[in-house]
Amino acid sequence: MILGRVTGTVWATKKDEKLEGAKFLIVQHYNMDLSPQDKFTVAVDSVGAGAGEYVLFAAGSSARQTEQTKDRPVDAVIMAIIDEVDLKK
Amino acid sequence: MILGRVTGTVWATKKDEKLEGAKFLIVQHYNMDLSPQDKFTVAVDSVGAGAGEYVLFAAGSSARQTEQTKDRPVDAVIMAIIDEVDLKK
Amino acid sequence: MILGRVTGTVWATKKDEKLEGAKFLIVQHYNMDLSPQDKFTVAVDSVGAGAGEYVLFAAGSSARQTEQTKDRPVDAVIMAIIDEVDLKK
Amino acid sequence: MILGRVTGTVWATKKDEKLEGAKFLIVQHYNMDLSPQDKFTVAVDSVGAGAGEYVLFAAGSSARQTEQTKDRPVDAVIMAIIDEVDLKK
Amino acid sequence: MILGRVTGTVWATKKDEKLEGAKFLIVQHYNMDLSPQDKFTVAVDSVGAGAGEYVLFAAGSSARQTEQTKDRPVDAVIMAIIDEVDLKK
Repeated sequence: MILGRVTGTVWATKKDEKLEGAKFLIVQHYNMDLSPQDKFTVAVDSVGAGAGEYVLFAAGSSARQTEQTKDRPVDAVIMAIIDEVDLKK
Repeated sequence: MILGRVTGTVWATKKDEKLEGAKFLIVQHYNMDLSPQDKFTVAVDSVGAGAGEYVLFAAGSSARQTEQTKDRPVDAVIMAIIDEVDLKK
Repeated sequence: MILGRVTGTVWATKKDEKLEGAKFLIVQHYNMDLSPQDKFTVAVDSVGAGAGEYVLFAAGSSARQTEQTKDRPVDAVIMAIIDEVDLKK
Repeated sequence: MILGRVTGTVWATKKDEKLEGAKFLIVQHYNMDLSPQDKFTVAVDSVGAGAGEYVLFAAGSSARQTEQTKDRPVDAVIMAIIDEVDLKK
Repeated sequence: MILGRVTGTVWATKKDEKLEGAKFLIVQHYNMDLSPQDKFTVAVDSVGAGAGEYVLFAAGSSARQTEQTKDRPVDAVIMAIIDEVDLKK
C-alpha cells in the first residue's frame, strides 16, 4: 500500500454506469516521515476519508476487494485512515 | 486512477478478434493542477470521451470491468469525463 | 496500452511447458510522435506482427485475454498493429 | 518479489471492515548488496516479521494469496524472512 | 516480460506455508543488447535456471500461471531460458 494525504476531489458526472455514487478523492503520495511527494493518485474512498487526512490506499485488482469497489472499473481505493506512523531505525 | 486529457486516436485495422469495435484513444497524463506531463497511455473509451476532454482512466485488470472491455486484452479504460478538479491545501 | 515497434525476437528453447509455440517479440517503446524511447518489453504476438511494425501491447493479466496467451505465464501481448496515429493538440 | 527491511508500523483504527486484525508494516526497499533505497511500501505481514528484519514482499493480486490477506484490499504482503543473500558475478 | 540474468539466490527458511520448496533467484534486469541495468527482481524459478543464465521472467498475476507458482504469493516467475536475442534495426 502507499501512504498519502487527501488533497482534493475530482468531480465527474459522465462516468461508466458501474461508478454511480463513487467518490473520487485526490491522494498526494507522502514519504514515511510525512513529507509530501510530487505524485498523485485518484482513488475511490471506502472509509469516509476527508480532506487533509493521511490514508493508505491499495492499487490494482486489490482495489476491488471492498464493498464500495467490487466489480467496478476502479484501480485505487482508500482502505484505511492513518492514526500514526511509527518509524524505527 | 490517473487524470489525463484525450489528445488523439490510434487506428488499427489488424487486431485481436476480441477487439472488434474498440476505440483506442491517446490519453496524455496531467498533473492535478491540470498542467500536462510528458507521458501517454493508449486507453479504450467506455464513456464517449472526445479530443480535448479531461478524463480519468483505470489500468490493469480493473480496465476490464466495463461493458466495453470485459474479457478483452485491454489494460486501460477511460471510465469518467472530468467536470472539475477541486484542490485543497 | 503502450505504443511500440517490433525490433527483434528472443529465442528460448527451454521454457515453461505452457509456452510451447509462443513467439517472443522485442517491442521498443515509442512516444506518440513516433520517436523511440530507450525502453523495451518482450511480448507474445497474437496478431502476426513483424519486425519494424508499430504495434500496441497490453500488459498484466489483460495480456492473457487472447487465444494465444490464455492461462499462460505471459505478462505482455501484442494485440494490434497500428495503421496510423492521429494527434490533436 | 522485492527485497526490503522492516522499518516501522502504520497504525490505523478506521479501516475497511475486511482489514480487521491486519498489521501494516513499513518496508524500506533494499538493493541486493543490502544497501538501502529511498523507497518504501506498506505491506501486510504473513510471517511474523519484526523491525529490522530483511524480508521479501509480493505485490499486486499475488499479495492476496496468503491466509492473512485472502480477499482483502491489500496489495503487498511480506511472505518470507530472509536468512541470506548469495550474490554471484 | 523482462529480460534478465540470474545473479544469485535468496535464502529464506521462515516463509508463508504455501512457499515450501520454492527457489528464490535474483534476476538482474538487462537491456536488449545484453548490457546490465542497475535493477533487480527476486523471482521463483520454473525452468531450472542457473547462475549466469539469461532468462525471461513474467510479473504480476501471470507469474502464478506455472505449475510451480499456482495459487502462491509470488509475483515474478522465470518462465524461459534465453538462447539468443536477435535485434533488428
